[in-house]
Amino acid sequence: MKTDIDRLMRERELDAIILTGGEEFNSARYYLSNGARITHGSIFKVVDKPALLICNRMELEEAAKSGLEVMTDVELGYYDRYKETEGDGIRATVLHWSDVLLRLGVSAGRIGLYGAWQVNKTIALYEALRAGLAQYELVAEAENTLIEEAMLTKDADEIARMKSVAERANAVMALAWDYIAGLRRAGDNLHDEEGKRVTIGDVKNLVRRELMARGLEDTDMIFAQGRDAGFPHSRGEADMPLKVGQTIVFDLFPRELGGGYHHDMTRTWCIGCAPAAVRETYDLVMEAFDISIEAFGLNKPTCLMQEAALDHFEKAGHPTTRSDPSTMAGYVHSLGHGVGIDIHERPSLSHLRRDDICQIGNILTIEPGLYYPERGFGVRVEDLFVVDEKGELVSLTPFRKDLVIPLKGDSGAAQ
Amino acid sequence: MKTDIDRLMRERELDAIILTGGEEFNSARYYLSNGARITHGSIFKVVDKPALLICNRMELEEAAKSGLEVMTDVELGYYDRYKETEGDGIRATVLHWSDVLLRLGVSAGRIGLYGAWQVNKTIALYEALRAGLAQYELVAEAENTLIEEAMLTKDADEIARMKSVAERANAVMALAWDYIAGLRRAGDNLHDEEGKRVTIGDVKNLVRRELMARGLEDTDMIFAQGRDAGFPHSRGEADMPLKVGQTIVFDLFPRELGGGYHHDMTRTWCIGCAPAAVRETYDLVMEAFDISIEAFGLNKPTCLMQEAALDHFEKAGHPTTRSDPSTMAGYVHSLGHGVGIDIHERPSLSHLRRDDICQIGNILTIEPGLYYPERGFGVRVEDLFVVDEKGELVSLTPFRKDLVIPLKGDSGAAQ
Repeated sequence: MKTDIDRLMRERELDAIILTGGEEFNSARYYLSNGARITHGSIFKVVDKPALLICNRMELEEAAKSGLEVMTDVELGYYDRYKETEGDGIRATVLHWSDVLLRLGVSAGRIGLYGAWQVNKTIALYEALRAGLAQYELVAEAENTLIEEAMLTKDADEIARMKSVAERANAVMALAWDYIAGLRRAGDNLHDEEGKRVTIGDVKNLVRRELMARGLEDTDMIFAQGRDAGFPHSRGEADMPLKVGQTIVFDLFPRELGGGYHHDMTRTWCIGCAPAAVRETYDLVMEAFDISIEAFGLNKPTCLMQEAALDHFEKAGHPTTRSDPSTMAGYVHSLGHGVGIDIHERPSLSHLRRDDICQIGNILTIEPGLYYPERGFGVRVEDLFVVDEKGELVSLTPFRKDLVIPLKGDSGAAQ
Repeated sequence: MKTDIDRLMRERELDAIILTGGEEFNSARYYLSNGARITHGSIFKVVDKPALLICNRMELEEAAKSGLEVMTDVELGYYDRYKETEGDGIRATVLHWSDVLLRLGVSAGRIGLYGAWQVNKTIALYEALRAGLAQYELVAEAENTLIEEAMLTKDADEIARMKSVAERANAVMALAWDYIAGLRRAGDNLHDEEGKRVTIGDVKNLVRRELMARGLEDTDMIFAQGRDAGFPHSRGEADMPLKVGQTIVFDLFPRELGGGYHHDMTRTWCIGCAPAAVRETYDLVMEAFDISIEAFGLNKPTCLMQEAALDHFEKAGHPTTRSDPSTMAGYVHSLGHGVGIDIHERPSLSHLRRDDICQIGNILTIEPGLYYPERGFGVRVEDLFVVDEKGELVSLTPFRKDLVIPLKGDSGAAQ
């Protein structure tokens, strides 16, 4: 968690870290700046000292909300350096960073670079830093980065925020269920109370509105029906009418409005009735879900949970990415992932990655699935879990896990 | 525009370009993939040949919507390379990219790198590429990049999309005006028809809902009142009650839902009545607005427009970033910027940047402003313009530019 950063810096022998970037959503900067709504600016943090947020003068008021020490680039002489380099932004930044590091008392040492920015600008700046700041060793971590490592366990405030997001996301999914359950069958289509044929786009619009009413924003939910449901990340076609008896994979992963913490949950639904093959597949996925939870153990590798799911699916005769790494059908993804400010964080729950351990404060998904696009369906079920202070795996996604949404207008027998 | 890319590659002597990145919104990848909703994947484009989009197998269906040639990383042997490198994602990517470049017939030459990704991962990959692909010269552009240059002029499809976004944004701002005009004065507060005191958050929620109903999403609008309006990028406090007679800077810059093209417009409002000093400042800003438009000339430098605004403000005795680069008051930003998939694109309308020229197909803002936080107000007025096929500067923001929103419940005399 955030309070681990100094320890992580010491362990990694980093004398300072710099978080930078452009207008892209920058989860590292969001994290260290406590969610300040800035689109420019860098954070300099010297080990065992408070962080300094350097912002554009236009964003001073927003930057101040970080609670960090804040200075503008103007105050720190950036524009003098810009003038001195005749408007060469990269060279000016190198000189400016040198000024800031010296001001912070760091005249040599190892500097970790983080953030999110354009690939080309990052490389150009890096090359200029290497040439211009030879007294520093620049460190760029590709895996198990300091920021990832800190984000891997959530503190009490983060868990409280994510529980709140979870409650709201569950409530919105319940509204979507209720809306669909209240539709009327018209052949294999579904009509609303005004007699209008309902599409996937209608459901998505309802969900987006209801998320927004609760201070959440959609981040491109998946509501994929039929063959589309057979591709794990197919978003679904807005114009496609909802169909009775087809399989729908509904993966909802909203976040706090304007950027912030996520929830992540998936349900697989069949409206009115489910084909026997889908029911059978669904039951198998639910078994994998339960089995992988049983394989959870505090301080044990996360890959054990994925391996339990793989064993289960393979024993039942389904291809997996372990039995056939190139497969496009069967169980084609890992069991889950951490969730936070980013939708995909650590820990990883993959058999290809054996170094992640279940720890108190992890917030992670468990989401086994089976995909058969050529048979016209896919199934995935996903809850978000927190490893609580007792070391227990607790679901934040209480919403019902029924496959079939019974239509209120149907008789019981029709289901 | 997009059709310029081969010419730009030849001019820059690039044999191929690679666009890559992570889950961050990646405007370069969005642009070249024609808006495909993918969160992973890279685009390889050899000069004068069609582009290849390499995606994760889970995103194959979404990737296909790009209209590009699509292959999965599995098909192209990425996972074999991953296994070969014992799960070292960076080294596997180097070998994989080498495989892809050879497959595309590029065995040496200059390769431009673009996209958006974590700073640390970008640098780590770049270092590994330099070591592992020494037969290629890697090119990282910091300024006037190929992608920026292509995006600088919009094609007919892009202009049509942005006109549609503009119409919808203007309609939503009109609804916000109408909503405020219909409120009732209660001291210096404003009440809705149920007698509830109205806050900035209420207005923002209305705007977000109405944007969404039109297929747009808010990207953190500015609705800043009083002293907050004096800081150009202060977002405004949701809990703050709307106040009669205070200055509001309302900067709305939504984009197509899920990422896409933007509109950008600002109005400055006083509800019910305006103090004389604000009125005077507003008139001066509107004069600068008109004067800078008059300074527009096809194929002339954009900085002439900014200089016209600077001259005007300085003559009237206001500090500017030209007269005092460190000023926090007066005219503290540039006149405008290009808009497209990114909210800030080229051309730049800054006096510090003299190399941008007004061209047919530019879509740019003109947004002079004056900021006096210590006097409790700021003023900015902004339209988005297209340089049309006749070379004329045409506003896409017809919405009224009145300073005062008269309250319908007030007598005329009260205003």
